[in-house]
Amino acid sequence: MRVEVVAVGTELLLGQIADTNSQWLGEQLAANGIASHYHQHVGDNHERMVQVFRTALARSDALIVCGGLGPTQDDITRAALAEVMNVDLVRDEAIVTVIESMFSSRSRTMPQNNLLQADVPHGASIISQRRGTAPGLICPLGNKVIYAAPGVPYEMTEMFERAILPDLLERERAAGNSSVIKSRVLKTWGASESGLAEALGERFDELGEHGAMTIAFLASGIEGIKVRLTARGSDDAHALELLASEELIARRIITEKLGDIIFATDEDTMEDAVATRLSEAGLSLALAESLTGGLISSRLVNVVGASTWYRGAVVSYSSQVKYDLLSVPEGPVVSIEAAVAMASGVRRALGADVGLSVTGVAGPDPQDGHEPGTVFVGLDIRGVTEHASLRLPGDRPRVRAYSAISALDVLRRALDRSL
Amino acid sequence: MRVEVVAVGTELLLGQIADTNSQWLGEQLAANGIASHYHQHVGDNHERMVQVFRTALARSDALIVCGGLGPTQDDITRAALAEVMNVDLVRDEAIVTVIESMFSSRSRTMPQNNLLQADVPHGASIISQRRGTAPGLICPLGNKVIYAAPGVPYEMTEMFERAILPDLLERERAAGNSSVIKSRVLKTWGASESGLAEALGERFDELGEHGAMTIAFLASGIEGIKVRLTARGSDDAHALELLASEELIARRIITEKLGDIIFATDEDTMEDAVATRLSEAGLSLALAESLTGGLISSRLVNVVGASTWYRGAVVSYSSQVKYDLLSVPEGPVVSIEAAVAMASGVRRALGADVGLSVTGVAGPDPQDGHEPGTVFVGLDIRGVTEHASLRLPGDRPRVRAYSAISALDVLRRALDRSL
Repeated sequence: MRVEVVAVGTELLLGQIADTNSQWLGEQLAANGIASHYHQHVGDNHERMVQVFRTALARSDALIVCGGLGPTQDDITRAALAEVMNVDLVRDEAIVTVIESMFSSRSRTMPQNNLLQADVPHGASIISQRRGTAPGLICPLGNKVIYAAPGVPYEMTEMFERAILPDLLERERAAGNSSVIKSRVLKTWGASESGLAEALGERFDELGEHGAMTIAFLASGIEGIKVRLTARGSDDAHALELLASEELIARRIITEKLGDIIFATDEDTMEDAVATRLSEAGLSLALAESLTGGLISSRLVNVVGASTWYRGAVVSYSSQVKYDLLSVPEGPVVSIEAAVAMASGVRRALGADVGLSVTGVAGPDPQDGHEPGTVFVGLDIRGVTEHASLRLPGDRPRVRAYSAISALDVLRRALDRSL
Repeated sequence: MRVEVVAVGTELLLGQIADTNSQWLGEQLAANGIASHYHQHVGDNHERMVQVFRTALARSDALIVCGGLGPTQDDITRAALAEVMNVDLVRDEAIVTVIESMFSSRSRTMPQNNLLQADVPHGASIISQRRGTAPGLICPLGNKVIYAAPGVPYEMTEMFERAILPDLLERERAAGNSSVIKSRVLKTWGASESGLAEALGERFDELGEHGAMTIAFLASGIEGIKVRLTARGSDDAHALELLASEELIARRIITEKLGDIIFATDEDTMEDAVATRLSEAGLSLALAESLTGGLISSRLVNVVGASTWYRGAVVSYSSQVKYDLLSVPEGPVVSIEAAVAMASGVRRALGADVGLSVTGVAGPDPQDGHEPGTVFVGLDIRGVTEHASLRLPGDRPRVRAYSAISALDVLRRALDRSL
């Protein structure tokens, strides 16, 4: 079964609010092995809504329409559905009663336009409301179906889980499809998307685009490149089994060809990877940040429980602070020597086991004879120091963001070696 | 002209990444008076992409396609465009040279499949890349056009502003739609969207929804509420004149009813507002951050020229660092007293004119008897101290983000009073 998501609302087209419903529904459908090949956004315009619904019905088996079920004049999804179904809107007295009692229970008088929400296309069945006033609809069209839910995520998600998904799965079973999809994301840092694609190219071709296992590459900007493995199995166990064996293969190929570039899985981040290693080793961390200006620190404190291993940071944006607080020797502050001195200095100043530092040139102008994008990372683990030199692309914010995750990756690799 | 946005990528359909491009483009098109009636998402599948492009061309005058221009096997937008244009893909040697030099400049060898990015549909013109490797495309189809840009927002937005928007506006002029749209965004912090809507409600009704001037409210999460004024004039001068007079009216109404909540205009940020005031007053700044963990500092260093007024920060995540480096009196570190001591301590330690501090509880657990969301801001301007107490909503990252902009707003208002 192919399910298409249609988000209704002029505010979506004008970019005044983000459409989080399509992403959420896409994730839910995929997790349940239901194919979704298209999403559409359309405004609160009768003709265009009708046209979008017809376009979607021509290429999909089911539509999930979000939005336009409210009580105001521009909530016209019900009328558009009635036209596509070629039926009339009928006022449902049961819904009238529910809405009236909802208002009276909150001892508020009901504005008359709320009754619009009781108008139902003839032949549609109703998804009762539990979190708002507008009920959802299940509109049959021959062997196809349109589900309509409110645009408010809090209301839509509840209706999807309670009524829409069960109905979809029942239709899948009736159609003899009951496969389950599971996916895993391997997060990498240090390789290009094309480099990964080349490393996994052979495996990519072996699996093909429509097999039980597929591989995809997601460039996620400053967070590196993600490799997504997706398995389609007869049930959860089967899909997870396929996924587990493919993950072993992918990890082996990537590590053999590109080294230790996989830093996390699924929702984990680079800071989680560092946090896990520090906690396990019982090591505390202090940072000395120059061009990154606190960016690395602000990432680390998002890890729950960071206070058990994170001491804090000195953001030595001016050279004087490097000399005074971090006892960096007077002289150029964009150098390997300065980076190492900053790491050792902050480790002592904050009484930590590990000191990590970053100094460099964010740009736009060169500094100490170095071009923008020149970055030095210093590391001091209980007195044992090392350093890394980087050349990073982009404008100021970009150079900073790359520097932050690069420095954390230097720490991750060093901890793996030293532990 | 009607412009349709098509976001390409199976990861969008699977909900693995959010499509922020459609929202951003919708906002840009609206701000430039260009109609956009539909958005679509489609996966990395040749037949479906071709079908989606044709559907869009049938109902819109121009398409902006985001994504699928990368170097990997699943980047197939170029081939789909060639089929819709009914032309061949031709390898562009100029692009080959650019991509090769980009890799060599980073002293990396170029994987061969990067050359796929040099394949161009015959007859398409090229939007050169400035931030990545994949160039964009302008594909003419009779009197219609398809623009193709990378899916990476950082690359897409730059191409839109440099090449796509100017081309669209030129087509608008050629089509005789020569009215000019100018808009200004007033950024506010500290008022609710409904509060602003109520304050400006009368003016909103006077202007109406389809007049030469319109007002819109854009909630932008942690950055506060934006008020967008949009003027449609016969030419630039006329539109700017309308805009200027409306801005005076809006500023007067907002300030009279809600106080000094407008902190910036258009692209300016809260950190720009603070930077301007510090530079003008010749004051240097140092930060002491606890629960914000360096977030405020990382925002300040994004201001070009920050080194002239910004000394740096101490991120005192552990209490011991507060006692040792900031000479905060031993005792509870989530209190007004601790906040003020941190501000004065960091001002002295880093030799700055102004010290700003934030301490509080990010959650999930209470601390020092305070609930999550309890935040204290300390300020020391040349020995004159003040403080603010805040109660902020949301989870850890949200409390932090609100704390950061709130603290900067405290500084902004204090500088306005003291200067």
